Amino acid sequence: MPAHTPESPVVLAVDIGGTKVDAALVDADGRIVPGSRHRAPTGAGQTPETFARAIAAVCEQATDAAGPAHRLIGVGVGTAGPLLGDGTHVSPLNMPGIRDLPLVPTVERFAGAAPVHVALDGTCIALAEVRFGALRGVRNGIAMVVSTGIGGGIVVDGRVIRGDTGNAGHVGQSWVRRPSPDDPVAATVEAVASGPATVRWANAHGWTGADGLALAADYRARHPVAVQAVQRSAEAVGQAISSFGALLDVTTVAIGGGFSRVADDYLPLVEAAAHRAAVLPAARDVRVVPAELGDDAPLVGAALLAFGG
Amino acid sequence: MPAHTPESPVVLAVDIGGTKVDAALVDADGRIVPGSRHRAPTGAGQTPETFARAIAAVCEQATDAAGPAHRLIGVGVGTAGPLLGDGTHVSPLNMPGIRDLPLVPTVERFAGAAPVHVALDGTCIALAEVRFGALRGVRNGIAMVVSTGIGGGIVVDGRVIRGDTGNAGHVGQSWVRRPSPDDPVAATVEAVASGPATVRWANAHGWTGADGLALAADYRARHPVAVQAVQRSAEAVGQAISSFGALLDVTTVAIGGGFSRVADDYLPLVEAAAHRAAVLPAARDVRVVPAELGDDAPLVGAALLAFGG
Repeated sequence: MPAHTPESPVVLAVDIGGTKVDAALVDADGRIVPGSRHRAPTGAGQTPETFARAIAAVCEQATDAAGPAHRLIGVGVGTAGPLLGDGTHVSPLNMPGIRDLPLVPTVERFAGAAPVHVALDGTCIALAEVRFGALRGVRNGIAMVVSTGIGGGIVVDGRVIRGDTGNAGHVGQSWVRRPSPDDPVAATVEAVASGPATVRWANAHGWTGADGLALAADYRARHPVAVQAVQRSAEAVGQAISSFGALLDVTTVAIGGGFSRVADDYLPLVEAAAHRAAVLPAARDVRVVPAELGDDAPLVGAALLAFGG
Repeated sequence: MPAHTPESPVVLAVDIGGTKVDAALVDADGRIVPGSRHRAPTGAGQTPETFARAIAAVCEQATDAAGPAHRLIGVGVGTAGPLLGDGTHVSPLNMPGIRDLPLVPTVERFAGAAPVHVALDGTCIALAEVRFGALRGVRNGIAMVVSTGIGGGIVVDGRVIRGDTGNAGHVGQSWVRRPSPDDPVAATVEAVASGPATVRWANAHGWTGADGLALAADYRARHPVAVQAVQRSAEAVGQAISSFGALLDVTTVAIGGGFSRVADDYLPLVEAAAHRAAVLPAARDVRVVPAELGDDAPLVGAALLAFGG
């Protein structure tokens, strides 16, 4: 990795997820400053106080890594959704103890005089993939993460869109089934096709493995239920993509996230399913490609918020 | 209606639908020049020749209405989708004899030296509602038409989006059910909830009426199957809207089209269904409002293409 130039501007980037919070210094070329990346666990048991402490701790550790060669020019925060209020408060779906928490006060002391920028993690991932990754040069596309949940960000005319309250990009909450009165949410693509949902489906059909890793191994071994489970997930994700294609006329969908690696051919399966489900000719041309920035994408995108997107 | 000022600029606006083609002169304020609106039938039996002749005939009748007070500054065409090629060719889904037909040569002699602008009819409707109708001042919204089909246009950050090939806004091709191998398309919101689909569903459940008008009458009379059929349509449209809300974080959906008037409370039913189906808080605030421009919207929006959107 090339040395950072003296006094190169960096951003304190923070990525708040359901199970952990990451912070790092990121430069304008999307490089994480070596030694600056730090992580703390979060999770369902958090209170507003423990959550704020965890965020502040990783921010302090990250900024401690800034030497004289770095000038901190701002703070960018990507967070699990949904955003509330003016787009700076958060109620992460899987942290029931955290409701309508203001993020800015937690991190503003690291920003100096600069503003704190907040966006959905999916928005950040899309920003990163557009600038440095699989969506470079794409005018209309989607970045998708298939993992414990399904999220993402949307590119329209070359720009990552935010929507009215910062919540555009919730691709996982698109319907692919008829909702049932008992559990309406179980009909969204996230509820059908995420990693945990797919493991649960396989378990319900006689497969006895514990998690996505075991499912990946049994898919490779052609265990019939494992194969069906993976195909079912890909089918639902492809179905959702064909809805997005009809709606937004996108050319490219970049997919990352742990569960997208459950099978070597998961992305081709998704693409084939999207093409089969396409009603319109344009939607049959959608390309499904691997996201390129991996685990760095949320931090790199959060930094881009402060570098000016 | 106020008189047109001398030499006011007008656009020849053309609206190509599945059953008819309309043409009229439209001024910069979205007013149709009196006497300039003309219509010819189209439909499934068209050949490229008869179709081009029908379009040319209404264009000629419309332009004949231009007196010395009007200066024709361009041609705008809104058309049933999908658009093909560079966004100027059309293959209307319900005109099997018309495939990849270039629209520009058919109308360019009316344009003089000005370019011919072509867009989806749904795009035109959204443009008209944003400029003059129910979507004025809306940053993120959707114009929807619920009729023999379901179509529309999408507003992102105050602009009507086109997508990569001009086909953004195909809201009817969003999935609300699991596709069946026998008839996958029957799981889209258009296939579930359009006027003809709803009449078919009612007929299959013992209602013996012939069309949407009869269904509207029996809904008012509280015929149980008619009530169920209308509720089922509204439920599916609301479900689709909640997907759009999660994806695009829209505040307002303006609905027009003949079937949206099947019941006085159709739009409230749709809004209630959209709120019930919303997984995210932002999507529970979506407002469903009546479109304001009615049958004029496609022509007014087609004119806006040439007036500069």
